[in-house]
Amino acid sequence: MQNKIQGVYLVTDRPLCIHHRLEDVVRLSANGGVSLVQLREKETSSREFLELAIHLKKILSPFKVPLLINDRVDLCLASGADGVHLGQTDLPWFVARKLLGDKAIIGLSIETKEDWGNLQKENPNLTLDYLAVSPVFDTKTKTNTKPAWGLAGVQWLRERTTLPIVAIGGIHLDNAKDVIQAGANSLAVVSAICSAKDPKLATESLRNLF
Amino acid sequence: MQNKIQGVYLVTDRPLCIHHRLEDVVRLSANGGVSLVQLREKETSSREFLELAIHLKKILSPFKVPLLINDRVDLCLASGADGVHLGQTDLPWFVARKLLGDKAIIGLSIETKEDWGNLQKENPNLTLDYLAVSPVFDTKTKTNTKPAWGLAGVQWLRERTTLPIVAIGGIHLDNAKDVIQAGANSLAVVSAICSAKDPKLATESLRNLF
Repeated sequence: MQNKIQGVYLVTDRPLCIHHRLEDVVRLSANGGVSLVQLREKETSSREFLELAIHLKKILSPFKVPLLINDRVDLCLASGADGVHLGQTDLPWFVARKLLGDKAIIGLSIETKEDWGNLQKENPNLTLDYLAVSPVFDTKTKTNTKPAWGLAGVQWLRERTTLPIVAIGGIHLDNAKDVIQAGANSLAVVSAICSAKDPKLATESLRNLF
Repeated sequence: MQNKIQGVYLVTDRPLCIHHRLEDVVRLSANGGVSLVQLREKETSSREFLELAIHLKKILSPFKVPLLINDRVDLCLASGADGVHLGQTDLPWFVARKLLGDKAIIGLSIETKEDWGNLQKENPNLTLDYLAVSPVFDTKTKTNTKPAWGLAGVQWLRERTTLPIVAIGGIHLDNAKDVIQAGANSLAVVSAICSAKDPKLATESLRNLF
């Protein structure tokens, strides 16, 4: 809860890294001023996922850029990563908080207004570091997502929480400014950086909007 | 390392539970004298996996039958399960030991003689609770397994370790006695109990061989 979440947030996707290897995308993005990196791996063994996390943590440490792990609290603990990003079907956030301790960064995806309502009900002592509005716009990167929130959705959540809001889904340079104006503290992107010919420039361009 | 591993070891597989629900298979198997249950879920969300683990732990507690979780150290911690079973592409066993502590039961699959050789090399202080010889016989339950060890393979490993040996893969009532005679302390079965019309009887029949 001491962590300030803002700026450009890179979510990794190895198949989308078409011009550079993932580790190079991450390094170049750190050079471009990325604020946070989330390692997301869906089809990988635990062993390979762990090795990748340890490798990225080493790359990011000199930049003081936190590394988050998608879903896997054990791999966060084992790799020395800084926290986890949780979806609605991952471990409950308060369980992750218990296992990871106070200093870990824990973020939660909010996919519907109902998710927000349930969160309000389940625990008044909300020790989350950010909420991720997901997806803001329709996107091909993630399948099975709920209907897009749109800019109005970002505003809707902004009016209801003081927690940092990370916006994710279909964000690129052309619509990023609008999302910030709607109330997002941080912009999470996948393909806009992973698939960029110049991930450093792609990160800088987004960062300059803040 | 205080745990005695022996007897019948049930590895769960929900699609193979054709006559009963998984929780009923586990309860009936506990009634039949199962020694250990491993929850293995490959296609489930972390949330659902956790809920299932908590549910099975409640069922098994009165029987004092330990519950192990396949691969996921975080779900073991979160559910209060007794340990983990690790494959060769899961977290390294010494990382799991560090996260779970001394009292947890940790078992490791040995799929080839090379796996055994690597294990000898990597750490002289082997704080594992058992080694699983996998697969003993060819099986349809698990795909992508290495060539079967056969009874000679069980004997080979028996001559090299004092750790309890759990044999897994293609074991049923007709070949179980041979596997015990080859040196296995425990027989792990999937379909022989999960798909049985009477999981209690199936467990008892195997148990009576010890």
